[in-house]
Amino acid sequence: MKIGSRWHRSIWRDAATGVVTCIDQTRLPFAFETMTVDRLDDAVRAIRDMHVRGAPLIGATAAYGLAVALAGDATDDGIDRAYTALLESRPTAVNLRWAIDRVRASVSDLAPGERAGAALAEADRICDEDVATNESIGRNGLDIIRRRFEETGSTVNILTHCNAGWLATVDWGTALAPIYKAHDSGIPVHVWVDETRPRNQGASLTAWELTNHGVPNTLIVDNAGGHLMQRGMVDMCIVGSDRTVANGDVCNKIGTYLKALAAHDNGVPFYVALPTSTIDRRMRDGTDIPIEVRPDSEVCEILGQDLDGSLRTVRITRPDARAHNPAFDVTPARLVSGYITEVGLTPTI
Amino acid sequence: MKIGSRWHRSIWRDAATGVVTCIDQTRLPFAFETMTVDRLDDAVRAIRDMHVRGAPLIGATAAYGLAVALAGDATDDGIDRAYTALLESRPTAVNLRWAIDRVRASVSDLAPGERAGAALAEADRICDEDVATNESIGRNGLDIIRRRFEETGSTVNILTHCNAGWLATVDWGTALAPIYKAHDSGIPVHVWVDETRPRNQGASLTAWELTNHGVPNTLIVDNAGGHLMQRGMVDMCIVGSDRTVANGDVCNKIGTYLKALAAHDNGVPFYVALPTSTIDRRMRDGTDIPIEVRPDSEVCEILGQDLDGSLRTVRITRPDARAHNPAFDVTPARLVSGYITEVGLTPTI
Repeated sequence: MKIGSRWHRSIWRDAATGVVTCIDQTRLPFAFETMTVDRLDDAVRAIRDMHVRGAPLIGATAAYGLAVALAGDATDDGIDRAYTALLESRPTAVNLRWAIDRVRASVSDLAPGERAGAALAEADRICDEDVATNESIGRNGLDIIRRRFEETGSTVNILTHCNAGWLATVDWGTALAPIYKAHDSGIPVHVWVDETRPRNQGASLTAWELTNHGVPNTLIVDNAGGHLMQRGMVDMCIVGSDRTVANGDVCNKIGTYLKALAAHDNGVPFYVALPTSTIDRRMRDGTDIPIEVRPDSEVCEILGQDLDGSLRTVRITRPDARAHNPAFDVTPARLVSGYITEVGLTPTI
Repeated sequence: MKIGSRWHRSIWRDAATGVVTCIDQTRLPFAFETMTVDRLDDAVRAIRDMHVRGAPLIGATAAYGLAVALAGDATDDGIDRAYTALLESRPTAVNLRWAIDRVRASVSDLAPGERAGAALAEADRICDEDVATNESIGRNGLDIIRRRFEETGSTVNILTHCNAGWLATVDWGTALAPIYKAHDSGIPVHVWVDETRPRNQGASLTAWELTNHGVPNTLIVDNAGGHLMQRGMVDMCIVGSDRTVANGDVCNKIGTYLKALAAHDNGVPFYVALPTSTIDRRMRDGTDIPIEVRPDSEVCEILGQDLDGSLRTVRITRPDARAHNPAFDVTPARLVSGYITEVGLTPTI
């Protein structure tokens, strides 16, 4: 999507130079900086240190990481070493393994001299397919927003949680794709952006990307969404999903469940936008999805910009404070109005 | 309640010296500092700059402020000037007006030479009555916690939102009073403390006062409570109330409504602890309670402690970020399991 007047992906290979570049998301929203993925180590560091995040983008970065590694050592052993290093950079990322499996399979029957080029081409395809999938999600979600606009004749107010935007994917995003499509179609939209404690992806990433593309948006604390729905200030919610299981239960960023409850209580439609690849049909329902508990430093410390412009981490609790930091929750299917996938809009999964 | 081994009120008059002192809450949780209320200006500044907050404590501080003003000028004109200055220090605080009305009425028939002493005595009475009311709330809420402990035989996990503790009152607090009573009675309790964005009163005040009194507690982001209730980790919620109207709808800190929804969805009892003085029977239901919208700097900036220990405000959004910051929401009576007042526990108001 756009940053100012220029179109961007979150990771891209320059057509002329062949150099792979990604956005350093740890600097957002304070600074727009990019980093190149010239060598395997660049990709490992980008993923491990969360310069890139979001399952599809992690997959794309790993795919390029394996491809650039092959430019240095395209032997079977070289592939295996690079594969292992990437796999260990963020062990729980399902898309990461899927992407590097795919790149490895695409070159395994080739002579070493042909492998690097073929791997880069496969990484390009992974990116292009991600973009196409998300753009389809956008088109399918656009219909919902257009219908609402036609009903009310006024700005459609959409609440979203966390960042399921183009920064989490290669382009378009999932939850934000319909919003970009609506905005680009001339439908007036306004987004309520949940701050999304503790990592503040809403405040740092979602607000940043919407503003850069020109989509009106307003930041709210995670506590505020229910009140806005009570007062008729939200037309619909659209969120992403990390994993959706067979009965339609949705695992997503912590706090999603609370917004789904408020939407249900106030008759506000609650949509989940997701690529079908994140549906896990082996799991029957979401009750027992294991939830990652992350370090309490994410709750107790926060990154901000000082008066003089320098980035600074401050502690917002006492040094002896104890915090509990579950990263995701599960929204029961009964609270979901519909699932927006690249295939279409469905009331159930 | 206790800070370490020493008992404290949030404001007190020294029996020997007669000096009125309060805790400077703007320095919490990073530093424990006190300030004296020797002159009218001290009280005005303490209230206006939020060194003291919480309706009962604001009232108590204003009462002492009027009393110390009379030591300097006890004429009718002097009373009026002090009364007006205090009233304007935080215009929307209902308890403030109530407290200074009461002090003024208690001295109006006295000779100027007797007024200052009588006013101080009246301010003392206001404080003592607040403490007695809150202690009664504590006793009435204790029964609920004891019953739960007798049912399960294990630690009672209680979730609270914002700060309705002794720091918001003269002592005991409202929502936290039953918890202190239970802890002091030897019932094992553990408190999930909602951070309470944007002003972080949970992280800064509730965690601080519970820890100092020795009550086990764990900080969570506001997003996490629903998930904890889904997983059976919360036995009950107890929150305070800024205003409860005739049908039982509860106006309280933004985000309270979301926790009430989650409690209802998971069969977790949700209690509101309040002095009957905050019940507004003139208003039929809470739908139209006007909600204060506060500056967006509260969302975009945050106070923390630097690595070198100095306090520092950092901006956590881009300078051009727009935020909307409603301070309260309304929890419908249908989501409230019971009201704990100084009179008793009632299912309705």
